[in-house]
Amino acid sequence: MRPLCVLGLGLIGGSVLRAATAAGIEAWAASAPGTDIEAASAEGFSVLEPSEALRAAAERDALICLAVPLPAVDEVLSNIAEHTSAPLLTDVVSVKQPVLDAVRRILPDARYVGGHPMAGKAESGWSASSAELFTGADWAVCLEPETELANWRTVCALALACGARVVPAGAAEHDRAVARISHLPHVFAEVLAELGARNGALPLRLAAGSFSDATRVAGTRPELVRAMCDGNAEALSEVLDSAIEALRGAREALGPVIESGHRGRTELDRLRSAPGTELSVDLTAPEAHAGLLAIGERGGVITAIDGEHAHALVP
Amino acid sequence: MRPLCVLGLGLIGGSVLRAATAAGIEAWAASAPGTDIEAASAEGFSVLEPSEALRAAAERDALICLAVPLPAVDEVLSNIAEHTSAPLLTDVVSVKQPVLDAVRRILPDARYVGGHPMAGKAESGWSASSAELFTGADWAVCLEPETELANWRTVCALALACGARVVPAGAAEHDRAVARISHLPHVFAEVLAELGARNGALPLRLAAGSFSDATRVAGTRPELVRAMCDGNAEALSEVLDSAIEALRGAREALGPVIESGHRGRTELDRLRSAPGTELSVDLTAPEAHAGLLAIGERGGVITAIDGEHAHALVP
Repeated sequence: MRPLCVLGLGLIGGSVLRAATAAGIEAWAASAPGTDIEAASAEGFSVLEPSEALRAAAERDALICLAVPLPAVDEVLSNIAEHTSAPLLTDVVSVKQPVLDAVRRILPDARYVGGHPMAGKAESGWSASSAELFTGADWAVCLEPETELANWRTVCALALACGARVVPAGAAEHDRAVARISHLPHVFAEVLAELGARNGALPLRLAAGSFSDATRVAGTRPELVRAMCDGNAEALSEVLDSAIEALRGAREALGPVIESGHRGRTELDRLRSAPGTELSVDLTAPEAHAGLLAIGERGGVITAIDGEHAHALVP
Repeated sequence: MRPLCVLGLGLIGGSVLRAATAAGIEAWAASAPGTDIEAASAEGFSVLEPSEALRAAAERDALICLAVPLPAVDEVLSNIAEHTSAPLLTDVVSVKQPVLDAVRRILPDARYVGGHPMAGKAESGWSASSAELFTGADWAVCLEPETELANWRTVCALALACGARVVPAGAAEHDRAVARISHLPHVFAEVLAELGARNGALPLRLAAGSFSDATRVAGTRPELVRAMCDGNAEALSEVLDSAIEALRGAREALGPVIESGHRGRTELDRLRSAPGTELSVDLTAPEAHAGLLAIGERGGVITAIDGEHAHALVP
């Protein structure tokens, strides 16, 4: 497998370095000074100076994995551009269109394929990272009309090597999806938590498990929630409008909202428990792009790549 | 302790019968034909014909505990009225003002003190009931300006005997509180689940633990959610308006919503982990009503009653 250069040693970057190394991929990393560089080195991982790491990546045409927060992406892309104009590049940032836009602006010749592993935990930083973080998780790997499938396959192989299953999706579709299943739930949790605490302590006293579950993510540090939502502001605004409309509907008639909500939840349970049908996509066929995207749209995942064929499970 | 007559053998009624019996209270029950009467009898519980159970309750001035769904309350109150005009009465229905209104209409001389144990599980019916369901749970016991504290103490003693801690609250305040911490979270879960499932399967595929937690209660049978919300329609409408306003605010500026939500969730965690200050309320004092209600408003609970004193823990 192609060598890997991970930029950033937080929870996700650290876990990519660990998981890829455990899978036998030759990998090295770089991180901003003052982070967990020493801890990673002490564990025997190869942590280089950023310019040294990027020089090695350029020389060996390694896959570079950007594992920094969205606000740092522009600067790191500019650093990469000093060493190579057409890197093989992926990232693990939780929104995809802003990263794609930044790559098109700063490194227009990059062989870029965005990624987003759907895994996390409450703790952050290298000390929370784990080689098993991605085991069984879904990992969105982005596919735009101009994406070369050879590059897509390389990024896909990294995700699979880390133990994940790959969900093919366009960057814009990915961002609209996470607005619905991640960013809106955060905003809902904040609103519920605020309303629960608004009029004295009696409501919070009477709150049971359902309220705890519904407000759990409101315990996330505000600046992290803010950064996450700001990075996907347009898609979040759109789905907030839909949510306000749905709640206005509930104000008039509860029945339809309850029925459709129950159908949605049933669909989630079905999707998760369905054994799935096996499919195979020939990556050399002209319809491969469309075939891969259709798998994601139907809620399927790529479980393996074997020669020129991607094997999928579709519910 | 005073004998107990439980009307209804579902999850909550059955658990009250089991827990009270286990605590040494002489208890009998009645239930609608076709329910779990035989199963309860087979376990050695005394299950009588409804009229027989009510005659025994009238003769012994037992505490009658109404454990039927809200739509059945009027009919059961009328049945009680055929045997006694001034029963000592409580209930375990999840909304309190509609039951209070029904008692005032049908049994105006009843010595009524409403109750709501904040405990439940996904399963329902006698087979799901358990003597331990209320262990460590909060149990709201209602206090209106006209409530006789001797009657309030009797209902409080039942809740404590069942292993719960008592939260004193007015019926209207209780209903406004549960609209915030139970009914609105249900509506939010329905809206999230519907929006997640609306545009193809990609969003549900990418959904992780936070979406599962946030939509879990949307898996509840629609008719149960409907009945629960309909029983508290006025308070729910009011807090839905507040929620729509908060989401409109989030649409304009996310920062304040995130900050106040985080404060609310922190307050919940604080309330739950606070060791609490011990307080005692003299139930014979003229300010006893106000003192008890203040405990609930401050997020406190009554942990024991000892002679004429209620012992409380207040965060």
